[in-house]
Amino acid sequence: MKINSLLLLLMLFGTICLAQDINNTPFPGMVKPSARKEIKLPQILGYQLLKCDFHMHTIFSDGIVWPEFRVDEAWEEGLDAIAITDHLENQPSKKYVGGDHNASYLLALKYANEKNILLIQAAEITRAMPPGHLNALFINDANLLMKPTPAEALEAAKNQGAFIFWNHPGWKAQQPDSCRWMPMHQELYDKGLINGIEVFNEAEYYPIALDWCLTRNLSVICNSDIHGITSQMYDIEKGHRPMTLVLARDRSLDCIREALKDKRTIAYFDNKLAGKEEYLKAFFEASVTFKPNGSTNGIKRDLYMVTNISAVPFELVTRKGDKLFIPAETTVELPLNRSDCKEITVKNLFTGSRSNLKIDLP
Amino acid sequence: MKINSLLLLLMLFGTICLAQDINNTPFPGMVKPSARKEIKLPQILGYQLLKCDFHMHTIFSDGIVWPEFRVDEAWEEGLDAIAITDHLENQPSKKYVGGDHNASYLLALKYANEKNILLIQAAEITRAMPPGHLNALFINDANLLMKPTPAEALEAAKNQGAFIFWNHPGWKAQQPDSCRWMPMHQELYDKGLINGIEVFNEAEYYPIALDWCLTRNLSVICNSDIHGITSQMYDIEKGHRPMTLVLARDRSLDCIREALKDKRTIAYFDNKLAGKEEYLKAFFEASVTFKPNGSTNGIKRDLYMVTNISAVPFELVTRKGDKLFIPAETTVELPLNRSDCKEITVKNLFTGSRSNLKIDLP
Amino acid sequence: MKINSLLLLLMLFGTICLAQDINNTPFPGMVKPSARKEIKLPQILGYQLLKCDFHMHTIFSDGIVWPEFRVDEAWEEGLDAIAITDHLENQPSKKYVGGDHNASYLLALKYANEKNILLIQAAEITRAMPPGHLNALFINDANLLMKPTPAEALEAAKNQGAFIFWNHPGWKAQQPDSCRWMPMHQELYDKGLINGIEVFNEAEYYPIALDWCLTRNLSVICNSDIHGITSQMYDIEKGHRPMTLVLARDRSLDCIREALKDKRTIAYFDNKLAGKEEYLKAFFEASVTFKPNGSTNGIKRDLYMVTNISAVPFELVTRKGDKLFIPAETTVELPLNRSDCKEITVKNLFTGSRSNLKIDLP
Amino acid sequence: MKINSLLLLLMLFGTICLAQDINNTPFPGMVKPSARKEIKLPQILGYQLLKCDFHMHTIFSDGIVWPEFRVDEAWEEGLDAIAITDHLENQPSKKYVGGDHNASYLLALKYANEKNILLIQAAEITRAMPPGHLNALFINDANLLMKPTPAEALEAAKNQGAFIFWNHPGWKAQQPDSCRWMPMHQELYDKGLINGIEVFNEAEYYPIALDWCLTRNLSVICNSDIHGITSQMYDIEKGHRPMTLVLARDRSLDCIREALKDKRTIAYFDNKLAGKEEYLKAFFEASVTFKPNGSTNGIKRDLYMVTNISAVPFELVTRKGDKLFIPAETTVELPLNRSDCKEITVKNLFTGSRSNLKIDLP
Repeated sequence: MKINSLLLLLMLFGTICLAQDINNTPFPGMVKPSARKEIKLPQILGYQLLKCDFHMHTIFSDGIVWPEFRVDEAWEEGLDAIAITDHLENQPSKKYVGGDHNASYLLALKYANEKNILLIQAAEITRAMPPGHLNALFINDANLLMKPTPAEALEAAKNQGAFIFWNHPGWKAQQPDSCRWMPMHQELYDKGLINGIEVFNEAEYYPIALDWCLTRNLSVICNSDIHGITSQMYDIEKGHRPMTLVLARDRSLDCIREALKDKRTIAYFDNKLAGKEEYLKAFFEASVTFKPNGSTNGIKRDLYMVTNISAVPFELVTRKGDKLFIPAETTVELPLNRSDCKEITVKNLFTGSRSNLKIDLP
Repeated sequence: MKINSLLLLLMLFGTICLAQDINNTPFPGMVKPSARKEIKLPQILGYQLLKCDFHMHTIFSDGIVWPEFRVDEAWEEGLDAIAITDHLENQPSKKYVGGDHNASYLLALKYANEKNILLIQAAEITRAMPPGHLNALFINDANLLMKPTPAEALEAAKNQGAFIFWNHPGWKAQQPDSCRWMPMHQELYDKGLINGIEVFNEAEYYPIALDWCLTRNLSVICNSDIHGITSQMYDIEKGHRPMTLVLARDRSLDCIREALKDKRTIAYFDNKLAGKEEYLKAFFEASVTFKPNGSTNGIKRDLYMVTNISAVPFELVTRKGDKLFIPAETTVELPLNRSDCKEITVKNLFTGSRSNLKIDLP
Repeated sequence: MKINSLLLLLMLFGTICLAQDINNTPFPGMVKPSARKEIKLPQILGYQLLKCDFHMHTIFSDGIVWPEFRVDEAWEEGLDAIAITDHLENQPSKKYVGGDHNASYLLALKYANEKNILLIQAAEITRAMPPGHLNALFINDANLLMKPTPAEALEAAKNQGAFIFWNHPGWKAQQPDSCRWMPMHQELYDKGLINGIEVFNEAEYYPIALDWCLTRNLSVICNSDIHGITSQMYDIEKGHRPMTLVLARDRSLDCIREALKDKRTIAYFDNKLAGKEEYLKAFFEASVTFKPNGSTNGIKRDLYMVTNISAVPFELVTRKGDKLFIPAETTVELPLNRSDCKEITVKNLFTGSRSNLKIDLP
Repeated sequence: MKINSLLLLLMLFGTICLAQDINNTPFPGMVKPSARKEIKLPQILGYQLLKCDFHMHTIFSDGIVWPEFRVDEAWEEGLDAIAITDHLENQPSKKYVGGDHNASYLLALKYANEKNILLIQAAEITRAMPPGHLNALFINDANLLMKPTPAEALEAAKNQGAFIFWNHPGWKAQQPDSCRWMPMHQELYDKGLINGIEVFNEAEYYPIALDWCLTRNLSVICNSDIHGITSQMYDIEKGHRPMTLVLARDRSLDCIREALKDKRTIAYFDNKLAGKEEYLKAFFEASVTFKPNGSTNGIKRDLYMVTNISAVPFELVTRKGDKLFIPAETTVELPLNRSDCKEITVKNLFTGSRSNLKIDLP
């Protein structure tokens, strides 16, 4: 049967027949449901990859939303854990918004538990450069971090068992010319008061900070630092917010803390990954499979059916310069010469400020 | 030339070449721009159609966002005017959020002016049924509305020159069984303390309230009553938030006030319109043009090229029951017998609780 | 850090820096990649669910595309098997398009093998009602089906071992008033010349045909009958084309044939399923898990975290009339009283022309 | 009123209530309507901008669709005129598809008239390099172009009054190393047998050909050269197919022919324009308006509300290197110093192989 397109137009609507109640007719279809979108990632090296955002704000500092909303966002976007990190020293809404420095954590905690989002108590120590801004995770009382000097504030956090990382080290407002590791950072580092660095914040990547993490044995951290609404800032439907992937033994606060201290993290931003070569290699291998599929006649190439089970796409370049794109969560047919299967560069997987993951195909 | 699909895959990426700065490489492409989306509506009867939402909340009552954010939403969604209507009597966040009842208006005003959004000072008088909740627009000082009885509060608003409308009259939390016009409503109406009624609120339509507006000469009102984020509640990209279309002589606060008092409004929700027949007829005629386009051979029908310049689609049903769908802002080819051109019902244009606009085609 | 939105706009583009070659600069990013989108379905009762479309046309009858294109569509849309069923008796393009009745199959076969799409040789026997149109699958030579009477044509197909089903029994062009099982259908059925019926074709559902299948032990069939382009006809990105789900022991032509003969099929159209209760029950149970999640305070209900791993959403209605929506491939939080967990109707799963699947929750 | 999100989920579906007919229940909502999407472009220099694609194929050469389908695509995508340019010398489907070289034109003509798409009779003269492939538009009989040498074929076209352009001059299959203007091209050009050049074809841009057009007074041409389905090749919803914008006095075949001969064309591909500076300047000025909007406090910049009425976005770069993005058909707020308003480069408007449009803001 070939439905005549004119007839089709005739029947084209009529789907919505309201059971019209003269008093109150609900239109539920016009309201978007709140649903969780899981981010498909492989397990690697025996660890789960937990999706974490350790940097965000609410009206209790300079954000524009109520704390519970951060839990809703995280749940819908498929995150496992978040830290609300309101500034200790920057509260532009203070005239109207009160409460002590633990308020946003406490207001969000019950709801986080209901939604099964791991909520880490935290605060942002917000100082001039050096040392700039630092986030302290896993604290018990943010009020005790209100100290005259940054070092004192960080010591107070450390006394609570905190994991501390340096935020947006290359932020031009604080480091307008370049991104420098200053003597004070060295001092804090020597005292164990810097345990990680944001190599990515909001929409900025600091490649040099990746090198610092790798050479100084610090955790690679990546966060949104959201002040507004994540779904308005980022393309949540086709993309994702920036986040830290934590290689955790289990889905728990303890396992996140352990992994952070063991430097088991990957930065995940804008469909790119940055971190230790070992982790990125394992990630790629756990995500992609190549299956030979005959050869094309015109051009002398072998064809592969390439399946990627992860939410991260991959951009490959062969030594010859041929480019191959592997979209996320799908299968594509790709051409590849046998001689081109060695030393393929994965352009969107960064193992250092100037290096990418290299792979050999079987 | 026929590009070989294999070669195409070879070149498939390579677009993103970062001018990589080792200190700070921005990724602006991952951030969505803030842009205004105009809602395409015709002029009718010599008036502009202003897009207005007269009901919304912030953290100063039981909303979850800072007041300026309501301006951003309105600007991006193509609105002309908004009223922030925080509850006078319902402030669950009071423990943390201070300020008097004018705070949210004053905090949003400067930014609204910058963005050229008309901001109407307002408040929601939030009482048990009867009379339920009422919004007072065009007030000067919300604090003066804190009165023991609803009637006193409404009088205080009226003394400030307010336009007052009854919110969600059929809300089941206050009218669980039916939607009734109670003696107290009659009393308030007689005193000029009810000037309009929400026939639609959030995701609920109260058809009977449309009849009340038409028979009692009240303004038809339609609002979002948003507490969260409009873009998460409604499909803003392909649809729109509920709003009141105001037939205004000009784009100004004064003209909105004048139009509200003259009952020149249309409710616009979920791609539907509700209001006076005269207005809906003018709206349809200003939006749609029919152009004969030959006749189909198999079936004996005339073909029309039908162009709709407005953002509102139209669902037509002929006396015979044939259905015709005219999408928004586009042209479609529709079949129609000459004999079917009389008394066509426009199913999504409501002229009463049980009546739709009827049209005759030329 | 709070990125100033003005600064952000400053950096808002700049992503696309072409390595501009004055001779030839490719813009690969403007071309959509050809990628396969898997349809996520559970395994049920020990069978794989193969996604099959057994009814489609090419320019070798009254379709508008070259046969290989049907393979591309099927591959991209996640199908496992297709049958090209060009009309034997309806070739409006005959003046320009030649070849015998096996041409479209033979032209598509090599490419189908490359893409790993199972291609079933088939033809549509296209007669007036009764018996109307019937598809013969698993034939060897379509030319031998050119016989004077429908019964002879069907016998010829049967002699080749064909599986035969009746197409769109309620199509108004052939059954304008109702959908009747005529004496000739009974005759053909008695001779084993009707083995299944399309309960759904293109955009039409024939509920009575579902009853016929269940009472007469026929295979439930569902097809697109596509003549144009599936991605232009259906919303392939958020939805799917109509298809038959085949409960197969393995992904092979033989297992499809075996399953069809054993009546192991489910119709899958517009996010709905129709078929044997046993199959639909197994489908639901393999797709959805309910996890208690505390109770809401205001209203006395239990909360459940409900996860649906399949591409099919579910619409539930309790005995009381409460409605619950479970979207595809996601988790939502749903309220449900313990007393409401029995005899829940699944509105989009049809076990008969007037019955739906009923489930009890634990 | 704050609708409880749990209650909301309760009512979340229920919109689709089928008026279920046991014989035949149509599901019109699952079928996408065929609707025309107008491309919003300004009038410039007193001319309409007609949207034209002068290069496409059907099954009568190496395309995969029936000729009428090219009309449907064009109508839906907002085009004004098309030319079907089947290869004279390349018909891989010849074994199955017959007809002479005018067949595809004649088969599409009646339908084009119904849909009000201007259909230009045309053919692709398909030879080895030099001269490569050339399209002849506005011919009467394609069969007469079957001549031994390319020059003879082109002369035959010219004798029919054809407008002739050189296709994809930098196509690597024919010019693997560079894009050269060969002696034979000079010869044909001297004889008036080359009247335009494709500066863009399918997904390839040939910047050097833009220079040739500008210095040799040839028409700038831009086409899709589609063989498959345009909506599967390009992102039609958010983007557009490559096309030639013709500055025509009126919407007619005669006015297109006149404009082509007068070189009044602009190439439009991937949100970019290429052509004469005069035309691009007029296009920009007719599209964009800047309105001062106060100044930002933190950074010393003036703010502008910038409105773009056209479907083409603009990417600006100031002399200092600041980048400003103006999306299509919207308003954005942009920061700009007064001192930066001179010599702004419009990065996506190409006035030569190495030059962009420069503008001064008032």
